[in-house]
Amino acid sequence: MYRYLWSNGPKECLEFADYTFEEHFGRPIASYPPRAVLWDYIKGRVEKSGVRKWVRFNTPVRMVTFSDETKKFTVTAHDRTNDVTYSEEFDNVVVASGHFSVPNVPFFEGFATFNGRILHSHDFRDAMEFKGKDILIIGRSYSAEDIGSQCYKYGAKSITSSYRSKPMGFKWPENWKEVPLLQKVVGKTAHFKDGTTKEVDAIILCTGYLHSFPFLTDDLKLKTANRMWPLDLYEGVVWEKNPKLFYIGMQDQFYTFNMFDAQAWYARNVIMGRIKLPSAAAMAEHSAKWRGREETLEDAEQMIWFQGDYTKELMDQTDYPGFDVEAVNHTFMEWEHHKMENIMAFRDNAYRSLMTGTMAPKHHTPWLQAMDDSMESYLQVRGVAPE
Amino acid sequence: MYRYLWSNGPKECLEFADYTFEEHFGRPIASYPPRAVLWDYIKGRVEKSGVRKWVRFNTPVRMVTFSDETKKFTVTAHDRTNDVTYSEEFDNVVVASGHFSVPNVPFFEGFATFNGRILHSHDFRDAMEFKGKDILIIGRSYSAEDIGSQCYKYGAKSITSSYRSKPMGFKWPENWKEVPLLQKVVGKTAHFKDGTTKEVDAIILCTGYLHSFPFLTDDLKLKTANRMWPLDLYEGVVWEKNPKLFYIGMQDQFYTFNMFDAQAWYARNVIMGRIKLPSAAAMAEHSAKWRGREETLEDAEQMIWFQGDYTKELMDQTDYPGFDVEAVNHTFMEWEHHKMENIMAFRDNAYRSLMTGTMAPKHHTPWLQAMDDSMESYLQVRGVAPE
Repeated sequence: MYRYLWSNGPKECLEFADYTFEEHFGRPIASYPPRAVLWDYIKGRVEKSGVRKWVRFNTPVRMVTFSDETKKFTVTAHDRTNDVTYSEEFDNVVVASGHFSVPNVPFFEGFATFNGRILHSHDFRDAMEFKGKDILIIGRSYSAEDIGSQCYKYGAKSITSSYRSKPMGFKWPENWKEVPLLQKVVGKTAHFKDGTTKEVDAIILCTGYLHSFPFLTDDLKLKTANRMWPLDLYEGVVWEKNPKLFYIGMQDQFYTFNMFDAQAWYARNVIMGRIKLPSAAAMAEHSAKWRGREETLEDAEQMIWFQGDYTKELMDQTDYPGFDVEAVNHTFMEWEHHKMENIMAFRDNAYRSLMTGTMAPKHHTPWLQAMDDSMESYLQVRGVAPE
Repeated sequence: MYRYLWSNGPKECLEFADYTFEEHFGRPIASYPPRAVLWDYIKGRVEKSGVRKWVRFNTPVRMVTFSDETKKFTVTAHDRTNDVTYSEEFDNVVVASGHFSVPNVPFFEGFATFNGRILHSHDFRDAMEFKGKDILIIGRSYSAEDIGSQCYKYGAKSITSSYRSKPMGFKWPENWKEVPLLQKVVGKTAHFKDGTTKEVDAIILCTGYLHSFPFLTDDLKLKTANRMWPLDLYEGVVWEKNPKLFYIGMQDQFYTFNMFDAQAWYARNVIMGRIKLPSAAAMAEHSAKWRGREETLEDAEQMIWFQGDYTKELMDQTDYPGFDVEAVNHTFMEWEHHKMENIMAFRDNAYRSLMTGTMAPKHHTPWLQAMDDSMESYLQVRGVAPE
């Protein structure tokens, strides 16, 4: 999570149903928290539930195999603290390793001789490094929008963002131009598909990530692009080819924390035998139906309703404390609307918690002027020092 | 290999005995080639020997296990081109994956709030990015020396290099200061152990690498710091705990290409049964003897003789075309001497090939003025366009 990263969606759309922001912070807080505040919130829930002791930190899994004879998984892990690699057997494996960490890195002519800096959004750390610079951003999704906005906020001289399919289409500040796809770089001059050029100091590749599971054998490995409905996962969770294996959070996402929760509750219920899985054919058919609907989705609004319906389907089968999915969908719609209205000010809006019913207070400082992203700064009331 | 990287040692000290620079380029060339020239040389030898067809490119090994029953290795690899993970059995495995790719990254107080750029030497790409900047380098070994020199050559405003144990001690240009270890960073101000401070724009961690073999189980995994004689490797090559496994190039290095060659020839001879290994106890004893001598080494000169003797011991047991190791040692001494004389001009010297006896020509341009590191530029005769 790079410095100065503030949530790019309302916290009301990702609130845990069983652990609200108000419970954690003891009072209502504003709707777009910076990274430290969100981290504190997640940590609070982990502490409350007491699960931390079950996590083996600093211990990457190197390999998972499944034995058809014993019907068990062998997990080989590297305890880095003691530098010991060991194997252990498990009845079930849940893969929840995320899919936003292995960069998708495209190559453009002239990159090898470009005399500025080229980096993937994965390696973006601090917008201050780009103060006074002419920045070229490749991409048109959330990273492009947010990293460009960070660079603008912290004083980049200009931002040029280059899209392949279509522009983001927000009302950008005057020093931000959207241009068609980069064709090549000659010296420090970027050439675009429409024939225009721009002298740039740095190129930031906001070109997304690859699903990567180097620790899984082929029979267990999900292979998918980043999309709303990857195949081979019954209910988006159960590995159809071997239902002892589960994946959490592998979809492209509008819903996040509470969807992951619903998925986890579902996987737990399958493992505990509370949910009986249908036949392989029935699972595949069910997945195909969802994929069929996914393929008709045309815009963010439809994707949000799609993912809301999916989350609801999971919740209906578990004891995850229900919440008003339709109301969350509507908050997402408001968010989209606020972004179209003013991309540099949408974070100044406030929304009602769908868990507690409390309206969020407005933040004490407009996002564009809020340079300090610390928790202390965020939680203080305007003009009042933090407690 | 970062842009503008020129060999930091004479090519005469790393020349293959069975494929000389003169054979590859058709004429003698100068002694400190840039990266493209060295790459072309290595590639030429690969082509001549026809080994390329035996290499499975884009196929990282994910796991290697050894079965005590079958006495075979199972190697699991990921064919990225076809996105297929598969396993295969082998009688022998040779680990030649290098040990200069996983960065050793120290943390210093204030890094989390430093508003400039922090990177490990592993991520250094282009000195031009640091033109006009105040650079802080942490470290005192080859990366520190070379990256600092690159930054100086391409116009950094100042270089400050911070050492833990002792300074490099070269005659640095006026805008390069050596200071004791960094203690903390406050804003953009670096504080050093001697109480001095320096405002810096970027911090480059030239703090070395870790031996990393995430694809090996514990019974097969070499664990060592970067040093001249790692233990558990008989003749620096044979994994003593399981002599069907070999490691190439795991030592800290003065000798490189030709030492790797000698090691490869040795491993091949063991695999082919031409060399009979002694008992485990005898192997350990032999290794302990080398380690004993390693522990007495006090300076680069002694390390060079040590590694020369080691390389010779390997060559004496194989049919690797012998070369005059003592003469190479002396060339290394000359190199060290030239560096002490003028660290910004040592690459302007020329040495005699110990393989062909030919004296290298002087390069057409002093290194400090040679801004173009292409092969075309390097190979041209002064004032004559490349053929």
